[in-house]
Amino acid sequence: MNARRSAIILLSGGLDSATVLAIAKEQGFECHALSFSYGQRHQSELSAAKAVAKKHGVVSHVVTSLDLTAWGGSALTSDIEVPKEGKSDGIPVTYVPARNIIFLSHALGFAEAIGSRDIFIGVNAVDYSGYPDCRSEFINAFEETANLATKAGVEGDGFTIHAPLIERSKIEIITRGLELGVDYSMTQSCYDPDETGTPCGACDACRLRDAAFDQIKCRGS
Amino acid sequence: MNARRSAIILLSGGLDSATVLAIAKEQGFECHALSFSYGQRHQSELSAAKAVAKKHGVVSHVVTSLDLTAWGGSALTSDIEVPKEGKSDGIPVTYVPARNIIFLSHALGFAEAIGSRDIFIGVNAVDYSGYPDCRSEFINAFEETANLATKAGVEGDGFTIHAPLIERSKIEIITRGLELGVDYSMTQSCYDPDETGTPCGACDACRLRDAAFDQIKCRGS
Repeated sequence: MNARRSAIILLSGGLDSATVLAIAKEQGFECHALSFSYGQRHQSELSAAKAVAKKHGVVSHVVTSLDLTAWGGSALTSDIEVPKEGKSDGIPVTYVPARNIIFLSHALGFAEAIGSRDIFIGVNAVDYSGYPDCRSEFINAFEETANLATKAGVEGDGFTIHAPLIERSKIEIITRGLELGVDYSMTQSCYDPDETGTPCGACDACRLRDAAFDQIKCRGS
Repeated sequence: MNARRSAIILLSGGLDSATVLAIAKEQGFECHALSFSYGQRHQSELSAAKAVAKKHGVVSHVVTSLDLTAWGGSALTSDIEVPKEGKSDGIPVTYVPARNIIFLSHALGFAEAIGSRDIFIGVNAVDYSGYPDCRSEFINAFEETANLATKAGVEGDGFTIHAPLIERSKIEIITRGLELGVDYSMTQSCYDPDETGTPCGACDACRLRDAAFDQIKCRGS
């Protein structure tokens, strides 16, 4: 049991953050979920986040509205098309400028206000291959900055940023989640679902997810 | 003239950020102002920000809505009373959890999206005495984290966080601003103005501002 009981969980509604919520619960934290309505084209992930938060018995679930469409710069927040031809070299156009530092900063404010010192985020090794803000260098630097930015950090009782999936593959993540009772049918990974929330099956997020489930099924058969 | 021409200026509508905008303009930057409607009780500062942005000829002025009242934790975003008895020891209750890291993170997203690599913020030595996120340790750590968090940072053409007032007193700031043509009658510093935007004259922000103007007047007479 952890002495510092409450934690903020960044919950997108995708499979990674659902797994992270289950991990934080297992570690004994009372979990407060934080989701963002930021103008993403996959708004239906927020319905998934609500269902996942409810299933795992969070203490509270805050959905904060942020307008990241004001400056665009990403396929997820503008008219730029979501690629559906498989992974390309370099950082994909689905990268949203500064998204994780924005999300973590809001989580930090929430944490400090309620006296929590632990923040969980579902960045992982697969995302690492594309997004700069999914790497451990970034997470470590953010933690250090958070402890200089805040009253709680300066007065000694600092923050810990937990990224328990950072070195895990999608298959390892799903396997761990299944052990912890995550119901992945509730989660939503697609970057470009239709109006009913049905995944496109072709974007990078769908491909990674589907490939991992296929492999798990093959192993199980 | 600076080779990297455009910059994001965090513009609250107070005297510090108005001065910073004038400094950035003088340095040759094309300025994009960014303000936040975050549930602050001194919403009238946004009207001041608009007037200041217009006077100094910004290229664009984005006002982003963020809800920092969801978790409160500050006299500026909740029912906690704004102190009017002069400065007390320690970090004041007007401290908003993680505010500057949140604001800088949004500025970073804006900067990256429009191809700017320079962000200006009006933190200063007077605030330093109270707020952890007005210290150079924090600003330097944020800059480092920003360059790990972003595509532009990782790909080499990194960001600079400019805090030109950080070592300046309020008197030095105002003196510099007057040289650069800042009209301080447009600015709004009060934490707790009435509905018409009239300053209370008693909160820490009013006291610091009024004392500085009084001293400048005395010197001038």
